[in-house]
Amino acid sequence: MSGRPAVVLVSGGLDSATVLAIAREQGYACHALSFDYGQRHRAELAAAARVATSLGVVAHKVIRIGIDVLGGSALTDPAIEVPTQSSAGIPVTYVPARNTVFLALALGWAEVLDAEDLFIGVNAVDYSGYPDCRPAFIEAFEGLANLATRAGVEGGRFSVHAPLIQLSKADIIRRGQALGVDFAQTVSCYQADDAGRACGLCDSCRLRREGFAAAGVVDPTRYF
Amino acid sequence: MSGRPAVVLVSGGLDSATVLAIAREQGYACHALSFDYGQRHRAELAAAARVATSLGVVAHKVIRIGIDVLGGSALTDPAIEVPTQSSAGIPVTYVPARNTVFLALALGWAEVLDAEDLFIGVNAVDYSGYPDCRPAFIEAFEGLANLATRAGVEGGRFSVHAPLIQLSKADIIRRGQALGVDFAQTVSCYQADDAGRACGLCDSCRLRREGFAAAGVVDPTRYF
Repeated sequence: MSGRPAVVLVSGGLDSATVLAIAREQGYACHALSFDYGQRHRAELAAAARVATSLGVVAHKVIRIGIDVLGGSALTDPAIEVPTQSSAGIPVTYVPARNTVFLALALGWAEVLDAEDLFIGVNAVDYSGYPDCRPAFIEAFEGLANLATRAGVEGGRFSVHAPLIQLSKADIIRRGQALGVDFAQTVSCYQADDAGRACGLCDSCRLRREGFAAAGVVDPTRYF
Repeated sequence: MSGRPAVVLVSGGLDSATVLAIAREQGYACHALSFDYGQRHRAELAAAARVATSLGVVAHKVIRIGIDVLGGSALTDPAIEVPTQSSAGIPVTYVPARNTVFLALALGWAEVLDAEDLFIGVNAVDYSGYPDCRPAFIEAFEGLANLATRAGVEGGRFSVHAPLIQLSKADIIRRGQALGVDFAQTVSCYQADDAGRACGLCDSCRLRREGFAAAGVVDPTRYF
């Protein structure tokens, strides 16, 4: 893969797999970045590695962040149960400041690579109510990036690409399918088992299942 | 310590020790946050713990971040030497996007604590040329924080306090001394040994030494 370097956040879910396929199609030399932050659903890291390999990245790095010491989220705190019913407002699966932390580290790698492009699979439609998935957040981070960095000071221009931000889950699935993403490699479930099998009950599973149904695409997810 | 909770970034150096003393004087219930990011100068983590204890924090947490896998800085990459001469521009001791990452994690803890105040010891005067120590960066992060978070969405108002930003190193030392900071507990050197003794040659040592001289305060630093 040639082209300008980009850092792509790859969680192992279907959204970020589609983003990686989009960045690749646009000709970027993709550098995939994943995080081991004490999440329950650690099978997603194996999924991220599979997806990164399949889509021909230049490099894939996993940064360990001990964010779980802060507590406060069902995704990292074993004392908080993952809900199986939707609720109003921001759910307990919200990890405090997660996308801010992830984009900050992506920015760090971009600086080292002399890359000016970051890709993130946030989505403001089927977004589970997370505040750091909104367009205003992405724009604000882009502005921050250009103040925070050596490249910004020296006249560089960072772009944060969020190509899924206005798409429905069904649209994302159609787009990923058209670009050859193998969704069977991806894991979305908040409490997937070690083999990557999904619960079928959490918010993330529900959105994913409904997305495949709405897109008219066969759902390859393995449920336990 | 009672009062409203605040998250204070405490590196173990004299700047952040002074910031902690200032936050405490202002009546905040201080929660000190440090990072283990593969830095050479690991003695600063022991210093951070001493400082946090001395200044009576409510809690002190250390988050491990594997930022060293990204390379690119003399502070985390053993292949890059710490320079002993000042140079023009941004030095190789710059850690890519470091303050963005640190503030993002501080924001995460603030969300969990329902705190609205973050304190950071950046300084735009004796700042070694780091882009993420400038006032515009701090203001941009404050704006981002209010978009990124549950508290921001629900009407909270984050403030990022950078009380040293316009002070000289000598001013910081005078302020810290007036507030009872024990500078002998702090470690500023980029390549301090395990006992916390300083090289006396790196940028950070030079700024510190000149600061004590200019402030007319006895320098308690132990050099090797």
